[in-house]
Amino acid sequence: MGALDALLRPRAVAVVGASPSPAKAGHQLLLSLAPFPGPVHPVHPRASEVAGRPAHPSVGAIGEPVDLALLAVPPAALLAALRDCAEAGVGAAAIHAGGLAEAGAEGAALQAELLDVARSAEIRLLGPNTSGFLDPAARLHATFVPGVAAIAPGPLAIVAQSGGVNHQLAFAAQAEGIGVRLAIGLGNAADVDVPDVLDQLADDAETGAVVLALEGVRDGRRLIAAIERLTARVPVIALKAGRADVGAFAQSHTGALTGSYRVAHAGLAQAGAVVVQSTQELLDAARALLCGRLAPREHAGLGIVTGQAGPGLLLADELSVAGVRVPELGAAPRARLAELLDPITYQRNPVDTGRPGPSFREVVATVGGAEEIDALVVHALLEPGALDPVADLSGATDVPVVFSTGGPPAQVADVTRRLAGAGIATFASPERAARAAAALVQDAARAWRRRERDAADAAAAAPLAAATGAPAVPLAAAAPLVPARPLAAAPPAAPAAPLAAATGAPAALTAPLGAPAAPLDAPAADPLDATAAAGPWDEASAKALVAALGLAVPAGVVCADRAEAHAALARLRAPVALKLVHPQLRHKSERGALRLGIATPRELDAAVDALAAIDDLQDARLLVEEMAPSGPELLLGAVRDPAFGPIVVLGAGGVAAEALDDVAVRIAPVAVGEAAAMLGELASAQLFGGFRGQPAVDVHALGAAIAALSRWIAERPDVAEVEVNPLRVTAHGLIALDALVVAT
Amino acid sequence: MGALDALLRPRAVAVVGASPSPAKAGHQLLLSLAPFPGPVHPVHPRASEVAGRPAHPSVGAIGEPVDLALLAVPPAALLAALRDCAEAGVGAAAIHAGGLAEAGAEGAALQAELLDVARSAEIRLLGPNTSGFLDPAARLHATFVPGVAAIAPGPLAIVAQSGGVNHQLAFAAQAEGIGVRLAIGLGNAADVDVPDVLDQLADDAETGAVVLALEGVRDGRRLIAAIERLTARVPVIALKAGRADVGAFAQSHTGALTGSYRVAHAGLAQAGAVVVQSTQELLDAARALLCGRLAPREHAGLGIVTGQAGPGLLLADELSVAGVRVPELGAAPRARLAELLDPITYQRNPVDTGRPGPSFREVVATVGGAEEIDALVVHALLEPGALDPVADLSGATDVPVVFSTGGPPAQVADVTRRLAGAGIATFASPERAARAAAALVQDAARAWRRRERDAADAAAAAPLAAATGAPAVPLAAAAPLVPARPLAAAPPAAPAAPLAAATGAPAALTAPLGAPAAPLDAPAADPLDATAAAGPWDEASAKALVAALGLAVPAGVVCADRAEAHAALARLRAPVALKLVHPQLRHKSERGALRLGIATPRELDAAVDALAAIDDLQDARLLVEEMAPSGPELLLGAVRDPAFGPIVVLGAGGVAAEALDDVAVRIAPVAVGEAAAMLGELASAQLFGGFRGQPAVDVHALGAAIAALSRWIAERPDVAEVEVNPLRVTAHGLIALDALVVAT
Repeated sequence: MGALDALLRPRAVAVVGASPSPAKAGHQLLLSLAPFPGPVHPVHPRASEVAGRPAHPSVGAIGEPVDLALLAVPPAALLAALRDCAEAGVGAAAIHAGGLAEAGAEGAALQAELLDVARSAEIRLLGPNTSGFLDPAARLHATFVPGVAAIAPGPLAIVAQSGGVNHQLAFAAQAEGIGVRLAIGLGNAADVDVPDVLDQLADDAETGAVVLALEGVRDGRRLIAAIERLTARVPVIALKAGRADVGAFAQSHTGALTGSYRVAHAGLAQAGAVVVQSTQELLDAARALLCGRLAPREHAGLGIVTGQAGPGLLLADELSVAGVRVPELGAAPRARLAELLDPITYQRNPVDTGRPGPSFREVVATVGGAEEIDALVVHALLEPGALDPVADLSGATDVPVVFSTGGPPAQVADVTRRLAGAGIATFASPERAARAAAALVQDAARAWRRRERDAADAAAAAPLAAATGAPAVPLAAAAPLVPARPLAAAPPAAPAAPLAAATGAPAALTAPLGAPAAPLDAPAADPLDATAAAGPWDEASAKALVAALGLAVPAGVVCADRAEAHAALARLRAPVALKLVHPQLRHKSERGALRLGIATPRELDAAVDALAAIDDLQDARLLVEEMAPSGPELLLGAVRDPAFGPIVVLGAGGVAAEALDDVAVRIAPVAVGEAAAMLGELASAQLFGGFRGQPAVDVHALGAAIAALSRWIAERPDVAEVEVNPLRVTAHGLIALDALVVAT
Repeated sequence: MGALDALLRPRAVAVVGASPSPAKAGHQLLLSLAPFPGPVHPVHPRASEVAGRPAHPSVGAIGEPVDLALLAVPPAALLAALRDCAEAGVGAAAIHAGGLAEAGAEGAALQAELLDVARSAEIRLLGPNTSGFLDPAARLHATFVPGVAAIAPGPLAIVAQSGGVNHQLAFAAQAEGIGVRLAIGLGNAADVDVPDVLDQLADDAETGAVVLALEGVRDGRRLIAAIERLTARVPVIALKAGRADVGAFAQSHTGALTGSYRVAHAGLAQAGAVVVQSTQELLDAARALLCGRLAPREHAGLGIVTGQAGPGLLLADELSVAGVRVPELGAAPRARLAELLDPITYQRNPVDTGRPGPSFREVVATVGGAEEIDALVVHALLEPGALDPVADLSGATDVPVVFSTGGPPAQVADVTRRLAGAGIATFASPERAARAAAALVQDAARAWRRRERDAADAAAAAPLAAATGAPAVPLAAAAPLVPARPLAAAPPAAPAAPLAAATGAPAALTAPLGAPAAPLDAPAADPLDATAAAGPWDEASAKALVAALGLAVPAGVVCADRAEAHAALARLRAPVALKLVHPQLRHKSERGALRLGIATPRELDAAVDALAAIDDLQDARLLVEEMAPSGPELLLGAVRDPAFGPIVVLGAGGVAAEALDDVAVRIAPVAVGEAAAMLGELASAQLFGGFRGQPAVDVHALGAAIAALSRWIAERPDVAEVEVNPLRVTAHGLIALDALVVAT
């Protein structure tokens, strides 16, 4: 028994507002329900009969149990109708009318009132503002959209926020020959939301794949949990509207770079869903995945076999754009192919057969059997004299096969149907086949990543002695933090605190520049418990945090005045940088609160003078810091998303990064491997891999730092945002040159 | 009469190698030709009859005129067969066999020999290595791919390099209900190439749209000319294979950034073709454009009307990603919509009707009639009780309408067919409809750009007095160039030549830093005629070129020795930069041949010492240059593409630009408006528009400089490459900080 059984598995249905007028939704609902084998009761204030069924003036007057009531009445009549349902002991109700929460304050108030009534009466609510749902196997078509009775039952579950998209997908599934398990549109989702339906499907053995069409996301964490449960058993393919929306609402850089689409995309992918960009791709991917998922694999290898080289080129092109590996075949399969094929054909992968001949099946078997190959894409025109795709492909190889073909439409339809019976998905364009194959590869990569994460979690949970595979920077052992001490509030009687000593981090981390900075003084204050460090953070305390996360920071000294700065200059390796340190100070270089390359006391005096002239930061302190070696710069951040909660962000650093919007996002916490993979998603990834003689990033160290930050932000509700920018890639490792922490 | 009439409009056809064995291509060719009304002659060495037709031992033995011979014989038999054709006076031959130029040197030699025979005999050759072509209206199916007889005649011409892609598209057109005018695969294109076919179609009144599927491009200029002729009359939609290929062959930065796909894409777009990324998009765009092109418009505005908001959101999303404008409606249409629609619906554009009602047609008419709107995309599910798309859309508005719908497949097919009769293209997914609409907008933008360019050309050709709209920097008036004078070859007896004076450019261009640099000396040598400046170019001469192109360069002095450098420092505005100047010197900063921020004679001495230590550049000169104000940096270049000839390249400057591969390309020469549009194609475009307080680029000045460079490179076959990098955007305008010219 699922929590939504009254809604999705009703024994008896009432249609409230069952109109005798055929143009009305209430009338159409009754027509849609005609095939339903259980009782269907029209409810109408006056009519004694609607569409051939006896009608009742209220649900209560039916006199028999009703599991599901479909409310096809206008907003003004909804409360009375729902109360009638409550009194009659109805288990679930669908509200089809629009004009509620989506239409303004008045509608929202009404929706809230309806929800109260439903909750008190333990009625599960679908909608408002939805056309409904359908379950073809149960012959249950609880929707006012006509023409759905012919949609065949099958393994595909369609879950859409929009009723319109739900029906679009259900009809498209019909056209593609995919049977439907459930197709549901949630509308405003006052009560029943996407995760509720996904949880119901997770326990449903008849569901073979789920396609998910989202608009907004209310509770990202619940959504992720529900998808994770599902993907352990069946593939989930997701489409999220709003690609063009790069939400510019957040105040900080990090916030501005993480529009809701990007975050939702990251969340869906982390949860294990294959994310696509159109309704057609949703169904193409589902069709391929319903034929069989690949075993978990980080980068599955695809084989391409073609009867015509030209479409094969388009296919290979599309796979390459999608980032799918098409590995060269090894010596053994190539030797076999050389026996099977004309020497003028290309045989390394893609494998072109020239005009297909009798060896086609054997070629497919050879490529499919190669150890480099996890799945095949085959393209051939229908040429009955030269090729019989059904005979030549069915059972030819153990790996999944996606087929692309062209030919007279009736023949293509016939071959598609027959190959589906053999577990092979057929597409009428090479690019669609390629994208469907890419979905197989993406699904396998998600499963691989999940397995890797679960193994890391298990290792982390194991006793320390056994945890040889634990992350490089266990946060439990991280150094305590130094909170900001603004001069105005607490003039430092204690001597200036060198960051290196204050953080307690190993000396190597704070002295990446060659000669380690000597620890100068004792910490100015007892290290505070991390959770107590609410309130303003300045650069010094923020850097202490990032050092605790396992990132190096330049050796430096926070100084109260000019004299301390001179002392620091004398003890650090010149040239140094001089910065203002103040909790309200962001964008230092734009404010002129940063001077670089100071080598002499005279240059230091000039720099102190310049910084002292910044009017509104008179109570700031001075940070004297060694200069870091050159290298490309990253941005590492963490921020709270309204729907998904804490997230981490990796981007190319500097002003260009923002203009390019070149960032990767993960929901926090994230495992080291998944975090390390973020770098590869950047458009500028090449820049950080040793580009033109510049230092290359240590990808594992970066992943460990991101993972540590993600665990930290996930446990710190008092922190709104962390931004390490720039995080410089040097020959000596990553160095955080500036850092910012914003309290909630 | 077109040049390809013997091939494409034959009166009589021979099939050489007409095999009695049904699996053979030669047999299938005869079957395909069964519906052809003219004589079809099997040629076979022994058979007296093949597939029911009397056979002959040779073409010469037929005894009747033959226009077209289809050669279905293996490579070894081709020469004899073609000579037989030549003797018989055949006008055209198709060679179906593969294994020629694409298979290596031996095949290439045979192909060359075949071409010789064909040229001597004035035979036009199709192929080798193609399945052939079809002309449904003429019932001419000159292809060995079966099943093509049912492909309907109509307005769509399909021109593909690959025979396989040609048939893929022809069958897909059949499935989509698009009639075909011609569908041809060119194979190796030994003789008849894409431009030949396009030229034939340009004169064909029956052709309504052309889809073009390219792999490589042999003669880009001829291709562009052919497409330009066609697009003046009918739309051309192009797909180019090789998106994933970013050719890394060229030696220079600019070359490395312009893989062949990018250049071909630029050439196709400049020629007026709509460029798409899949075979499905090719046909979707063609179907929309066959219903009617928009009037030329730089940024046409689209209206969206929906019956269900959810699919409308996907539609709007896809249009936004494609960069299509969906303008807010004005007061008048909005007032009318307020009368027609429920107040809870969104009415500004997109216009959502809620569940469609009787006002749907009037809503479509209102949005279509709004002055902001050039075309409409309408989405609605098929709900017979609520909406009749045929009645509600046919003739409802004067602007083109693209329709997207969902419903029972047979009903969708019926509505699609009936709406096609009303000039409305229907798609079964909102995203496909959106992309098809984007193709309408792209076609209109291409036409607009062409009109703008033609107007600029006309203005430029007009007498100077009348040419008020002439480009800002007429190259005819540009300053002469200063060639490199390597010290070893010709020690400068003449005094150092300040670039400002040497170029003869207006003082304002060379002194963008505030105070103009005083012209110091007379030019060191007589200005040379530009065409004589072959041979090595150094930075000084390259900068003289860019100044002549209308770009500012920093005030600077080329110096032979330390003493001259000190004199220059005294006379320029400090701080200055010191650079080595040498024709063999590229990538100065990586070589350490560049020192910045030199303010004192002592700093200058240190810098000269450092540069003098660079071993292999002992004969270099020194350039002392004023420092430019800060700002974002561009890269401007020109290079020669093997297929398209001279091209210009604009990219984001610096090392990050290369890692990001963020460049825009145009075939040279290019008009100012088209050149100015390149900036908007950069992923980092935002960075150059006044991002976060940085200077914004003067887009017209940039376009003028690109256009000037493009005209110059187009007339300078002795120059292989020009690279201005960085080209800095400052508050005082564009300044070229470094420049490189490479001779061919």
